[in-house]
Amino acid sequence: MNITLSQAEKLISAAQEKARSIECKMNIAVVDGGANLVAFARMDGAWLGSLDISIKKAKTARFFDMNSGEIGNLSQPGGSLYNIEHSNGGLITFPGGIPIKNAEGEIIGAIGVSGSSVENDHAVASAGSEAL
Amino acid sequence: MNITLSQAEKLISAAQEKARSIECKMNIAVVDGGANLVAFARMDGAWLGSLDISIKKAKTARFFDMNSGEIGNLSQPGGSLYNIEHSNGGLITFPGGIPIKNAEGEIIGAIGVSGSSVENDHAVASAGSEAL
Amino acid sequence: MNITLSQAEKLISAAQEKARSIECKMNIAVVDGGANLVAFARMDGAWLGSLDISIKKAKTARFFDMNSGEIGNLSQPGGSLYNIEHSNGGLITFPGGIPIKNAEGEIIGAIGVSGSSVENDHAVASAGSEAL
Amino acid sequence: MNITLSQAEKLISAAQEKARSIECKMNIAVVDGGANLVAFARMDGAWLGSLDISIKKAKTARFFDMNSGEIGNLSQPGGSLYNIEHSNGGLITFPGGIPIKNAEGEIIGAIGVSGSSVENDHAVASAGSEAL
Repeated sequence: MNITLSQAEKLISAAQEKARSIECKMNIAVVDGGANLVAFARMDGAWLGSLDISIKKAKTARFFDMNSGEIGNLSQPGGSLYNIEHSNGGLITFPGGIPIKNAEGEIIGAIGVSGSSVENDHAVASAGSEAL
Repeated sequence: MNITLSQAEKLISAAQEKARSIECKMNIAVVDGGANLVAFARMDGAWLGSLDISIKKAKTARFFDMNSGEIGNLSQPGGSLYNIEHSNGGLITFPGGIPIKNAEGEIIGAIGVSGSSVENDHAVASAGSEAL
Repeated sequence: MNITLSQAEKLISAAQEKARSIECKMNIAVVDGGANLVAFARMDGAWLGSLDISIKKAKTARFFDMNSGEIGNLSQPGGSLYNIEHSNGGLITFPGGIPIKNAEGEIIGAIGVSGSSVENDHAVASAGSEAL
Repeated sequence: MNITLSQAEKLISAAQEKARSIECKMNIAVVDGGANLVAFARMDGAWLGSLDISIKKAKTARFFDMNSGEIGNLSQPGGSLYNIEHSNGGLITFPGGIPIKNAEGEIIGAIGVSGSSVENDHAVASAGSEAL
């Protein structure tokens, strides 16, 4: 099961609405079950460097089927996954990436958001992920 | 002058409508004046390999401010731009990438489409480019 | 709004003058609003490895519209942006990259300097950034 | 023996003057004897995709100590250096790259120009190379 483009667009709309409500300009990416990009939007004036980060957060969340920030807890110096960010062409392991599940609880993709503090990034990704 | 997200979404909607009318499943990418991604959509069932191609077509069109296929006419064996595809992290030089201009004729970005024959790719990109 | 080549050359001249006054040999890069290189100069005898670093500092400053060193404060182990350097083909997050604004306060590019201590790198980038 | 920054800037000035005289907007790169960038200038409005090409032309000319176009004659299908462009992170083997020699005939670097037809690119690179 893969997320559809229509579902991905719903996620991005909901994420944008949340971003506007907290006055942030975000890059928002949605990947499918194969960790390949389905839909993307960069809000006007959003940080250019967050383009790649939003996609990498979505991929990271799907690569390991958990929130991107959970990986970051394990990748610190001395941690069990130290410097895992070197794999897969570059991971981003701070908050803002969240897996997306269907009604049956199967993971069908992931959303990644970047453009503000990691708290705001996660809040916007979370609003998107709840749109299905 | 850069294309806005709202404009990019209009382009992608128009391109999708055209794709459906000719029964094609497309990857559609829009970049801004700096050749950086603004919006992207992969229609359900579209070729996975066309994801990267659609983005590279859009970038190629903005890199040289002409349709991607025009570069391909010059990059053939014996042509003046033979193997130019090795530059810029990889160009795609067959049809499907078209620069986008504003009302004053300034280039503000480009659209790239991939997922079917190059004739269909160009037709869908063209429908998108006329949506502004 | 993008920085012009003439403006970029003024920045590089001012940066070189400052570098000579503190007896440093620097690599100096200027990127435009799309984070693409506009002008570059490597002073005779400057570290070869600083070539790429100066360009990455300029890009990093434009990617996030802040001094490169500010990112580095957040990307330390345990920090909110830990290992952000893995994005965008490689960031450099220590001092020496500074955004460039026009008279209206809009960001039109960035300067990146590398070749000495980060304090000196920042001082030279700063001298360049004030030349407009 | 390496080209100096002062010499590289003379080359770029002469190349720009020639470019203006034939009404072209060029990307102009100068590398040293180690094929590492010394100086670069992108004229306002020059093709963005020619940034990377100008640098690759300069490197190609220094990698093999001959004009970039000479490599292109050998890299065609059936030629002895077929697809040599895949080496060194990407070569550009059409005209516009020229080695730079000092008064003793030693190669001290190379110039690469991109932004117009290959004839114009070569003419501008040639004007630059004669400035020493």
